[in-house]
Amino acid sequence: MEFETLSENRSFHGMQGVYRHRSQATGTDMTFAVYLPEAAQYGKVPVLWYLSGLTCTHENAMTKAAAQQWCDEAGIAMVFPDTSPRGEGVANDEAYDLGQGAGFYVNATQDPWKPHFQMWQYVVHELPELVCHNFAVDEDAMGITGHSMGGHGALTIAMTHPERFRSVSAFAPISNPSDSDWGRKQLTAYLGEDRDSWRAHDASILMAERGYPGEVLIDQGASDQFLDLLKPETLAEAMMKRRQPGQFRMQPGFDHSYWFVQSFIADHVFWHAERLG
Amino acid sequence: MEFETLSENRSFHGMQGVYRHRSQATGTDMTFAVYLPEAAQYGKVPVLWYLSGLTCTHENAMTKAAAQQWCDEAGIAMVFPDTSPRGEGVANDEAYDLGQGAGFYVNATQDPWKPHFQMWQYVVHELPELVCHNFAVDEDAMGITGHSMGGHGALTIAMTHPERFRSVSAFAPISNPSDSDWGRKQLTAYLGEDRDSWRAHDASILMAERGYPGEVLIDQGASDQFLDLLKPETLAEAMMKRRQPGQFRMQPGFDHSYWFVQSFIADHVFWHAERLG
Repeated sequence: MEFETLSENRSFHGMQGVYRHRSQATGTDMTFAVYLPEAAQYGKVPVLWYLSGLTCTHENAMTKAAAQQWCDEAGIAMVFPDTSPRGEGVANDEAYDLGQGAGFYVNATQDPWKPHFQMWQYVVHELPELVCHNFAVDEDAMGITGHSMGGHGALTIAMTHPERFRSVSAFAPISNPSDSDWGRKQLTAYLGEDRDSWRAHDASILMAERGYPGEVLIDQGASDQFLDLLKPETLAEAMMKRRQPGQFRMQPGFDHSYWFVQSFIADHVFWHAERLG
Repeated sequence: MEFETLSENRSFHGMQGVYRHRSQATGTDMTFAVYLPEAAQYGKVPVLWYLSGLTCTHENAMTKAAAQQWCDEAGIAMVFPDTSPRGEGVANDEAYDLGQGAGFYVNATQDPWKPHFQMWQYVVHELPELVCHNFAVDEDAMGITGHSMGGHGALTIAMTHPERFRSVSAFAPISNPSDSDWGRKQLTAYLGEDRDSWRAHDASILMAERGYPGEVLIDQGASDQFLDLLKPETLAEAMMKRRQPGQFRMQPGFDHSYWFVQSFIADHVFWHAERLG
């Protein structure tokens, strides 16, 4: 499992790196970022996976979430994967919400997406193996979070693999994609018309059916311009109906931007660090 | 003094806004950003001016410095001006370090720059007037900081107008432009061949000749890739020779990037807030 270093910059007492490797899951080169806190110089540290939203690369959250200081303080690493395969020969769509930049964290079973759009496999298995074998992070102390499409990814992955991701949170997640214009089109394209195949990728359905063994933290902006597409009420209802331990916080005044993520990232970093530490 | 709101997003307990206005100083439309802390809802707050470096717009520091949380906590506003006039009909140069994105915070006296490149006038007078009259900020409590070319601007402006900018700091400032490839070319282009006209725009010379009535804080990365161009040693020597109150901190491991700025922005925000509060 080889990878190439694109950049490394000191940030607080740790290091923000950007790397590229050849992915077997997607059959493409993939870029990812890792922040290592100072504590990683002295031994393995817990690691928080941050899945980004539509149109994002590894770079958006790395640059705009301002998580590094808190990761350094909490002694936890943070990994920022890309949101899809990219490049020539990779299928795409003109819409911003399908294809490159919009992998939706599923393994596509339908053409033309199937050959490269294997983001579930990539994020759950391949990239953690690479990171855990090459950086001072502890594969038995992994948490996962994300924003919007990435919040959808974090919740569905964590509820499916709680043994692998031992803490979970989300910012403004796409909460019920089976019943939203942010979901129906993409799940049809990637997984086909059979709605049964969608169930494993709908956080509200998974919450109703299985939940998560630990506490779940969700932050949602009350002035989010995409509330109709995100459907927070569906997930909140499923959480509370199940008596799922955790918190669903509706934050007044905040929209869907990274200003919202940045405003609460410290809470999430410490939430995960406490549970993984 | 009219201006247009391009965006406003809640950030922490305050608001990050981006605005555009017609500048008389530059004869162009200019975009600027203002962060207002929660305290600004209850009365006028101190304000910190952040001048950016080569190639930057108002956006880089706004997005990458992660200053908002500290400004909110300290109850201080922050303004991010652009680094030059821009647009059609505005002179430019193919080099990244001359013309648009590289105003160097001077009033150009030479063609073709003279008609629009009046950034000293813009940053010292015009934009503060607009901001102080339209936002809840106190024009008697203004501080100034900046990065690289913006650190040069902050230091030269503060030493020239200490009555107007009552606190000053800088990140990796261009410290001795009269004697650097980041300076000679630009000062010649904007101000002409007469080196006497450059003296008012050289922080090391101003420090030797007049200094600053308050304390000065400088942070510089020891692994900065541009140390030869920045010449921190010249400014440090001038500061200490003069017994200028303040601190020059050489920070090991840090380079010239925004990761460096972000790592120390909290120190600078609180430094200014303490002195302006």
